Amino acid sequence: MAATARILDFLRDRRPEGPCLVVDLEVIADNFRAFRHAMPDTRIFYAVKANPAPEILKMLASMGSCFDTASVAEVDMALAAGATPDRISFGNTIKKERDIAAAFARGVKLYAVDCVEEVEKVSRAAPGSQVFCRILTDGVGAEWPLSRKFGCEPSMAVDVLLRAHALGLKAYGISFHVGSQQTRLEAWDSALAEAKAIFDAMQKHGVTLSMVNLGGGFPTKYLKAVPGTGTYANAIHEALTRHFGNAIPETIIEPGRGMVGNAGVIKAEVVLVSKKHANDNNRWVYLDIGKFGGLAETMDEAIRYPIVTAKDGDAKSPCVVAGPTCDSADVLYEKTPYDLPVTLTVGDEVLIEATGAYTTTYASVAFNGFSPLAAYVI
Amino acid sequence: MAATARILDFLRDRRPEGPCLVVDLEVIADNFRAFRHAMPDTRIFYAVKANPAPEILKMLASMGSCFDTASVAEVDMALAAGATPDRISFGNTIKKERDIAAAFARGVKLYAVDCVEEVEKVSRAAPGSQVFCRILTDGVGAEWPLSRKFGCEPSMAVDVLLRAHALGLKAYGISFHVGSQQTRLEAWDSALAEAKAIFDAMQKHGVTLSMVNLGGGFPTKYLKAVPGTGTYANAIHEALTRHFGNAIPETIIEPGRGMVGNAGVIKAEVVLVSKKHANDNNRWVYLDIGKFGGLAETMDEAIRYPIVTAKDGDAKSPCVVAGPTCDSADVLYEKTPYDLPVTLTVGDEVLIEATGAYTTTYASVAFNGFSPLAAYVI
Repeated sequence: MAATARILDFLRDRRPEGPCLVVDLEVIADNFRAFRHAMPDTRIFYAVKANPAPEILKMLASMGSCFDTASVAEVDMALAAGATPDRISFGNTIKKERDIAAAFARGVKLYAVDCVEEVEKVSRAAPGSQVFCRILTDGVGAEWPLSRKFGCEPSMAVDVLLRAHALGLKAYGISFHVGSQQTRLEAWDSALAEAKAIFDAMQKHGVTLSMVNLGGGFPTKYLKAVPGTGTYANAIHEALTRHFGNAIPETIIEPGRGMVGNAGVIKAEVVLVSKKHANDNNRWVYLDIGKFGGLAETMDEAIRYPIVTAKDGDAKSPCVVAGPTCDSADVLYEKTPYDLPVTLTVGDEVLIEATGAYTTTYASVAFNGFSPLAAYVI
Repeated sequence: MAATARILDFLRDRRPEGPCLVVDLEVIADNFRAFRHAMPDTRIFYAVKANPAPEILKMLASMGSCFDTASVAEVDMALAAGATPDRISFGNTIKKERDIAAAFARGVKLYAVDCVEEVEKVSRAAPGSQVFCRILTDGVGAEWPLSRKFGCEPSMAVDVLLRAHALGLKAYGISFHVGSQQTRLEAWDSALAEAKAIFDAMQKHGVTLSMVNLGGGFPTKYLKAVPGTGTYANAIHEALTRHFGNAIPETIIEPGRGMVGNAGVIKAEVVLVSKKHANDNNRWVYLDIGKFGGLAETMDEAIRYPIVTAKDGDAKSPCVVAGPTCDSADVLYEKTPYDLPVTLTVGDEVLIEATGAYTTTYASVAFNGFSPLAAYVI
C-alpha cells in the first residue's frame, strides 16, 4: 500500500511539477506472482482498463499474463504489448458489431455476452468464437458495488448459451463478478453454486461448458486491512471443489485493482486551506487533484484513499478534502471528513496511496483547463 | 433546445463516426445578444469551463464578451481568442500562487477570493489587483446544486476584503453563485441583500466596494420549461433597485450553461438493448456515450437530457439508460427510468439535446480505451 522506496526516490530526484501518479512495476510483478502462486491452475487475464500503461502491459505480457479488454483500443494495446490474440478476451458485454468484427480480424476468439442480442452480433461478426455468459451476482460486500448493468439472471444464461450453440458459437462457460474490492469470501461460493447449476442445465441439453470466469473483485488495501491473495484462492478452491467435485472446470480470473492498485502513488499539493466563517471548526483542504483529475472513484466517497503527509506526527483534526476545479461536485471527502494534520498548509506535498488503478484514464481531458493526470511507470 | 437545422444538416451530410457533439455558433450568438439586450449595463464574463472550444471563444471575444477563467490554461485560451487581459477574470477561488503569478504576468488583474489565505497569495503574486470575495448562498432551487466548496459566510467577507485593502489590493466587490440551472428567481434577491449588507459594512471601515458579480446559474432548457433571460434580468434588476436604491453597483454575470448549453447536440448510437431475465419488464438501453464519455452531469441523475430518436412516434416504455464502459457506475438514468420507443434497437441513432455545456472537457482521457468526445463547432 505505502509508497515504495523506488517511488519515494523517484519523487525526490525528479521533483515532477504538478500532480502525478508514480507506478512501481516491481510491485505489479509481485502481485502477478502472488496470483499465479495462489492459483496455479487458473489463467490470469489482467483487466487492462485498471491501468493500460504500455510498460505495465508489456511486463505482464512477458510474464505470461492474458488480458481482459473492454474495447478494440484495448485489444490493440494488449497486442502491442506482445500478447498473442489467444491470450485476449473481449470482456465487455456491450460491443458494437463492427468492434467485434475488428477484434475478430485481429484474431480474438473469446467474447463476453449476457443476452441473446449480443450472441447474435458475435455469431455474425466473429463466427465460431468462444462465448461466456455473464451472470448477475448480488455484489454484497463490495466497496465499489456493481449495479445490474452487466450480466443476466442465471435463469436466462441457459437460453443465451443455447442460442450461441445453435448459431455455431462455442458455448464456453460462465462469468460473474462479485463486485470490485470484494472482502466477503462467501461471495464467490454463492456465485459458483449458480455456475454449477448452469453447467448441469446445459449438460441436459447436450452442451458441455468448460470454463468459469471468476472475474475480478480482488481487493487492494486502502485504509482497512483486507484478506490476502492466498486467503481468496483457498476460499475459491474450496468452493470449486464443493460445487464441482472431481470435475473442476477451467478457470480464469480478471484482476485489475488487485494487480495494480497498490503499485501506484499520486503526488499532489495543497493549494488552499481555509474556513468558511471566523469560528468554523471545519477546515477545507483543497488539493491540486480531484474527482475530475483522476480520483473519480471518490464518487459518493466510495474509495477512501490513504493520504500521507510529512506532518503526520502532528495533531490531526477533521477536514473536508476537495479538488481544484470550479465544480462544486469536485469534493472528495465531506460526509465523512478526513483527519489531517492541523499544521498542514498551502504548498505542502501529500501522497495519495494505493492509486495505481482507475486513476489515469478516468481523468478528464481538460476540465477547467487542467491537464490530465501525468503518470510515470518505473 | 432542439437540434437546429444547421446541426441536422451537418450530421446528415458528414455522417461522423462515433459519438460526437455538434455545436451551432448561431445559437450562442443569439444567447449572447439576449443577455446583452436583457442586461445592457452588466458586463458578460463567459464561463470558459462550460465549453472552451476555440471557435466559441473567438466568436464571443469578437462580440465583446469578457471571460471567466478557472486556470492559467483557460486564461491563455481567452487571450488566444482575442480577449485583452482587462476582459479576463481569474474566477477560481482555489489557485496556486505560481498560477496567480502566471496570470498576472499575462496582464490579468481581477481575481476571486473567499478567504484571507487566498488574499495573501494574490497580494504577493498579483500586487495591486482587484479582488472580489465570493460569499456562500444556499443554492435552493438549483438542479446542479452548489456545495459549500466555494465562498465564505457573508460575516467573514468583510474581514477578507479588509485584509485585501490592507495588503494594497483593490477591494472591488462581492460575488455569489445561486447554483447552476437555478430556476427560483428569488435566489438572486436574498444574495443581493447579503451583498448590500457587506457594501455597508465595508463603507463603515472607509472602503467603498463597487461591483457585484451575479455569477451564473442561468438555466438552459432540458426537459422542463425554464424562465427566459428577460425574466431573470427583470428579477435581478428589481432586486438590485430594492437593495441598492439609487447607488446600483457595477455588475457582472458569468453565464456558462446559459450561453452554450442549448447550442449543442450529441449524436450517439444504441449499442445494445437487452433484458436481465426472460420476463423482465425493464429494458436496458446501452449507448456509445456515458458518464465517462462526456455525460458526467448525469451523476446522481442530476441533469436529465432530452433524448430524441427517429422512432419517437412509436409507443414508449421505461428503460434504464447506460453507457458503454465496463464500469457499473456508468449508468445514466436508472432511479428514474427514461421513456424510449419500444421499437428502439441496436444501431439506431439518438440525439441527446442541450449538451453544449459541460460535456467535451468532462470526458475522460481514455477510460476503457474509448476516445474522448469528438466535437464539431459549426
